[in-house]
Amino acid sequence: MSEPLAKLQSTAPGVHTAADYLSFAQPRLTAETWHYLEGGSGSGMAMQANRHALDAARIITRPLADVRGGSTKLKLFGQQFEHPLLLAPIAYQRLFHHQGEAASAMAANAQCGQMVVSSLASQTLESIIEAAGQALWFQLYWQGDRQRTLQLAKRAIAAGYGAILFTVDAPVKQAVMQLPEDVSAVNLEQPALPLPALHAGQSSVFDGWMVQAPDWDDLAWLRDEISLPLLVKGVLHADDAEKIINAGCDGLVVSNHGGRVLDGVPGSLEMLPKIVQRVSAKATILFDSGIRNGQDAFKALALGADAVMIGRPYIWGLAASGALGVAHVIRLMRDELEMTMALAGTKDLPAIRAGKCIFK
Amino acid sequence: MSEPLAKLQSTAPGVHTAADYLSFAQPRLTAETWHYLEGGSGSGMAMQANRHALDAARIITRPLADVRGGSTKLKLFGQQFEHPLLLAPIAYQRLFHHQGEAASAMAANAQCGQMVVSSLASQTLESIIEAAGQALWFQLYWQGDRQRTLQLAKRAIAAGYGAILFTVDAPVKQAVMQLPEDVSAVNLEQPALPLPALHAGQSSVFDGWMVQAPDWDDLAWLRDEISLPLLVKGVLHADDAEKIINAGCDGLVVSNHGGRVLDGVPGSLEMLPKIVQRVSAKATILFDSGIRNGQDAFKALALGADAVMIGRPYIWGLAASGALGVAHVIRLMRDELEMTMALAGTKDLPAIRAGKCIFK
Amino acid sequence: MSEPLAKLQSTAPGVHTAADYLSFAQPRLTAETWHYLEGGSGSGMAMQANRHALDAARIITRPLADVRGGSTKLKLFGQQFEHPLLLAPIAYQRLFHHQGEAASAMAANAQCGQMVVSSLASQTLESIIEAAGQALWFQLYWQGDRQRTLQLAKRAIAAGYGAILFTVDAPVKQAVMQLPEDVSAVNLEQPALPLPALHAGQSSVFDGWMVQAPDWDDLAWLRDEISLPLLVKGVLHADDAEKIINAGCDGLVVSNHGGRVLDGVPGSLEMLPKIVQRVSAKATILFDSGIRNGQDAFKALALGADAVMIGRPYIWGLAASGALGVAHVIRLMRDELEMTMALAGTKDLPAIRAGKCIFK
Amino acid sequence: MSEPLAKLQSTAPGVHTAADYLSFAQPRLTAETWHYLEGGSGSGMAMQANRHALDAARIITRPLADVRGGSTKLKLFGQQFEHPLLLAPIAYQRLFHHQGEAASAMAANAQCGQMVVSSLASQTLESIIEAAGQALWFQLYWQGDRQRTLQLAKRAIAAGYGAILFTVDAPVKQAVMQLPEDVSAVNLEQPALPLPALHAGQSSVFDGWMVQAPDWDDLAWLRDEISLPLLVKGVLHADDAEKIINAGCDGLVVSNHGGRVLDGVPGSLEMLPKIVQRVSAKATILFDSGIRNGQDAFKALALGADAVMIGRPYIWGLAASGALGVAHVIRLMRDELEMTMALAGTKDLPAIRAGKCIFK
Repeated sequence: MSEPLAKLQSTAPGVHTAADYLSFAQPRLTAETWHYLEGGSGSGMAMQANRHALDAARIITRPLADVRGGSTKLKLFGQQFEHPLLLAPIAYQRLFHHQGEAASAMAANAQCGQMVVSSLASQTLESIIEAAGQALWFQLYWQGDRQRTLQLAKRAIAAGYGAILFTVDAPVKQAVMQLPEDVSAVNLEQPALPLPALHAGQSSVFDGWMVQAPDWDDLAWLRDEISLPLLVKGVLHADDAEKIINAGCDGLVVSNHGGRVLDGVPGSLEMLPKIVQRVSAKATILFDSGIRNGQDAFKALALGADAVMIGRPYIWGLAASGALGVAHVIRLMRDELEMTMALAGTKDLPAIRAGKCIFK
Repeated sequence: MSEPLAKLQSTAPGVHTAADYLSFAQPRLTAETWHYLEGGSGSGMAMQANRHALDAARIITRPLADVRGGSTKLKLFGQQFEHPLLLAPIAYQRLFHHQGEAASAMAANAQCGQMVVSSLASQTLESIIEAAGQALWFQLYWQGDRQRTLQLAKRAIAAGYGAILFTVDAPVKQAVMQLPEDVSAVNLEQPALPLPALHAGQSSVFDGWMVQAPDWDDLAWLRDEISLPLLVKGVLHADDAEKIINAGCDGLVVSNHGGRVLDGVPGSLEMLPKIVQRVSAKATILFDSGIRNGQDAFKALALGADAVMIGRPYIWGLAASGALGVAHVIRLMRDELEMTMALAGTKDLPAIRAGKCIFK
Repeated sequence: MSEPLAKLQSTAPGVHTAADYLSFAQPRLTAETWHYLEGGSGSGMAMQANRHALDAARIITRPLADVRGGSTKLKLFGQQFEHPLLLAPIAYQRLFHHQGEAASAMAANAQCGQMVVSSLASQTLESIIEAAGQALWFQLYWQGDRQRTLQLAKRAIAAGYGAILFTVDAPVKQAVMQLPEDVSAVNLEQPALPLPALHAGQSSVFDGWMVQAPDWDDLAWLRDEISLPLLVKGVLHADDAEKIINAGCDGLVVSNHGGRVLDGVPGSLEMLPKIVQRVSAKATILFDSGIRNGQDAFKALALGADAVMIGRPYIWGLAASGALGVAHVIRLMRDELEMTMALAGTKDLPAIRAGKCIFK
Repeated sequence: MSEPLAKLQSTAPGVHTAADYLSFAQPRLTAETWHYLEGGSGSGMAMQANRHALDAARIITRPLADVRGGSTKLKLFGQQFEHPLLLAPIAYQRLFHHQGEAASAMAANAQCGQMVVSSLASQTLESIIEAAGQALWFQLYWQGDRQRTLQLAKRAIAAGYGAILFTVDAPVKQAVMQLPEDVSAVNLEQPALPLPALHAGQSSVFDGWMVQAPDWDDLAWLRDEISLPLLVKGVLHADDAEKIINAGCDGLVVSNHGGRVLDGVPGSLEMLPKIVQRVSAKATILFDSGIRNGQDAFKALALGADAVMIGRPYIWGLAASGALGVAHVIRLMRDELEMTMALAGTKDLPAIRAGKCIFK
């Protein structure tokens, strides 16, 4: 299957941008699933903040540059990719298509990119990597204690995953939709670690959920246990970014979790420049939150990200057309990124950041 | 009744935030009462300014902090509270539920918080405190002259109220709706002090209403007369804040009266930082105006308030479900506040203010 | 008739603010007349700019000030007024009510204020001043040449008008509606000075209308000819303000002509502070454009205007109820201004400007 | 035909501004053609940015200036024009009216202005200039290589075109509508230069289209080949502007291509001041993008442009009434520009730029 996925140029009539898949995806999903996918926390201000921050950064075109032979290639942790558009970890992908995470992973690798598989994947880590035929990256949620967390990470490493993205910005389990019977987090130990019993007057937050959340000591411990590249996902404050890199991590993901955790956070792009200024010399910085097209990706790269993650858009492709849809979404965004780079006179990723082409 | 109110976690189906009570409350009230509750002065710009100011302050999440055992506890004037969410003084609560202020007070104390009972309460001060089973705070309106004002304050003190919040930003009686026959300000001396007769050419404002308004001398006099904690409610200018504290008051409430007095005032949150900078070292600063959820409360606390007041939202709960509704609103906001604190890496109220987690 | 006009408190049921007259006025006027009254130039951006500028200035309330005995009194050019709310010159008032300018003038004087009668009044200058029973002010349009202009000014002076406001921001005759047969500019010499014949290639603007527009030399000449107080109306640039005062004028009106001349001008309030800073020590500064209520008036006064002009709102009152409507609009705005002053702790007009109560 | 076009004052009832032609034009065009004309790239942000930038610049009126005898005259490259409103190059004008580019060119010259004829004109360059009866300017697209490009430019020069505007901001052929059989780019060599064949892994952007895009070396070469005035169209960055002038070009056009190329670019007017500051001493600067009326033109001139280009509005006139419509659009905008100049106290184009009449 990787052959058509790799050569894919255009499969769906009337689809010219990733956003065009939205209208194909929605009718294929239940209302509840659609809401689960599209919703942000609270009144949606955090999602809007992502959009506004991306719209506010504008691109100054730079004609007449010689960009022949340019490319979107990059190397991350020794691995060569054709483009900087990673698939973000999204849970329970069998909600959206019966092929689930396997389809997304096949598409990512066929398009010479990378997927980060969620701890909450609805297929086994082993079967996903087998479908992909290549190493993938793994998104790790803290499992309530060190032993369970390490067990999950080691399973991923044993299965051949090549980097660990440790998500820290959603320590409290979010309310999710009622999952169908045949969709579950099949890679997690069951039952989950029970929450501590609360005494009268104790807080379900501070004495309950947060007891099972990771802290800086846990991060240091995890760093020691894991020899693969380790990135922390969910960073918005430059002080935290610096502390993470000082803890020996290889990188981080600037993200507000797609506006799904706390309403009222800033747009992720607003926080990117300070973090870049502080740690980009010594760390790999990924950007996640609100990327909808190649121009958005260009903006994040221009402001200092090494690569970006796309989230909901590839799920639109998955829901609409399975692996082919995901591959097409990646291809469309890459084409837009290339076109934007050409118009901005930047022939490779370092040139994007070096170019003086962002106007705010 | 305090047992179920205290243990309350969730009573109403479909209610996940305080705002969800709005749609339960509205059909239970007459259109006139609803308009009286929800309306702001003029074209509503002051209410919008409150909302915009709160939305403009955004919260940077700070993961990986150890917040185990955290809490929202605080001590105000020697009294211990479990959380900083005070019930604001709202008049004529029997308009909204037959249990009136008594229900709100029971809920506040059952949730280990505090209520400020209005001078315009529709039940006797004594009966409200009896229903609550604990000390409450009293909101004092100037009664046109010193004698009547002191008489009202002394009645509250005699009934066991533990602090006086003296409201100064609404010196002119606002046009209110036509009250039903069985709802009135039962604690005020009747008839009210008559307005001075006006000579030709005199102003109903400067020579009428404002003759019965308190001034700085009256505040100094009141401070001398009252040994309880005395706070001034309705402060927006830092110069006034300083003058109030220099007059010996214990604190103040930064408030634009929920946007109900003068259209075209700034959002209260815009004025908070300057006031905090000027007087927070020597005074208790409460914040009131526009708080709708726990994130809003967090923002006011982060900008230097010691505690916040909630207004319309608890009346939504009162109208929908009486004391249980009020208790649930408090609980929901406290849960949201705790969750926000956890996500911002702040385990107690001092940490909120110390944390660098507000982005504007 | 001046008795009921002077004592007027409230005549129309449901009318609580000047804006409430709008819905009474509109059905009494033809669509064409209404459009003529309400319309701004172009797409209405200049009118919006006036509104936005006023809304953006917000008032910090200052409680506890002693404002007993306060007032809105002021003296302008030796004449005492009870309030600073002047009626702006509006043309052809018999379009709006059969009593025309006479009704407005009666109302202005009965409310102890002042009206500026337009050069384009639809009643004779003499009859208007007779109806008013007091001196009025006269708005002078340039009549194409000095002789005609002086003749018109001298007629007004002879009729007893006490000040001249020379409008300079509308040198080109605006397209107006087709006037009914019985409404015309009865005070102007007929026929009007013919526009110069244009040669091929000449501009109807530069070689036509503008040949009949006044320039700085004309202003200097007019200043010499007129011994009454002379103000220039339609000033937005501080350099022009300075030049006008240096030319010996007594004051000026900061105005964008209610957004009726050039779309895309700034809101008048945006230009006020610089002009105040430049010339207020030596000149009387009136503010005109967009005032809709007493808070708006307060804002302009706080930013340095000596008095303000109201325009469309008094025409709403005129259309709805003749002189009584105009008087009521003035009274309502004055009440709002007094209330705003009281809430801002300012007991007279100098205190408004001195108070630190504007937040931008 | 040039006689009525030159003397034209007003032909269409109800048309008072160029925008009024829009509603006459739309019903005369197919939906597809209308969408092709009006659409911007992507979600239209770039078009909105043009509008917002123009609206944000506001004009301070400057009364009392003596502007008699003023004019909008200017000289560009030795040629005298009556006004600075050039017709922008727009492709395939026979889509909009059967008279096509010839009609626009006649109108431009009859109104003593200038038209820039597109490389994608739907009539022969020779027939257009013949219809116009005067020299026109020619917009040059790169034709994939030097030989083809030079051949096209030389044909224009031979036909009598007097200046070359070399468009560089749209190197990649935009998706256009399906053209009717009888409309095509008749001046281009057919077939077009084929795109290079791509090897596996090559990019259709970097190894395809951009191989046929011009670069700085090509510009230098073109400058050497062309002795006519040469301007570069599509400049947004001051560094590029400087490089262009240093390459010996005579001027440039600040433009984002009417928002048709890359969504997310800044409004062209936002970029104008920096470019003016950098190169206006040694170059002719034209402004293009979003001009809809005479005030817009005034703003661009005030910010330093020597002349402006109008695009879609003249096509509205063309679609509605052929050459008469185009001539009327030009006349309306010129009248608005003259009126704006008069109100701003500026009697000629140098005065516009020198005047301190823009408020941002």
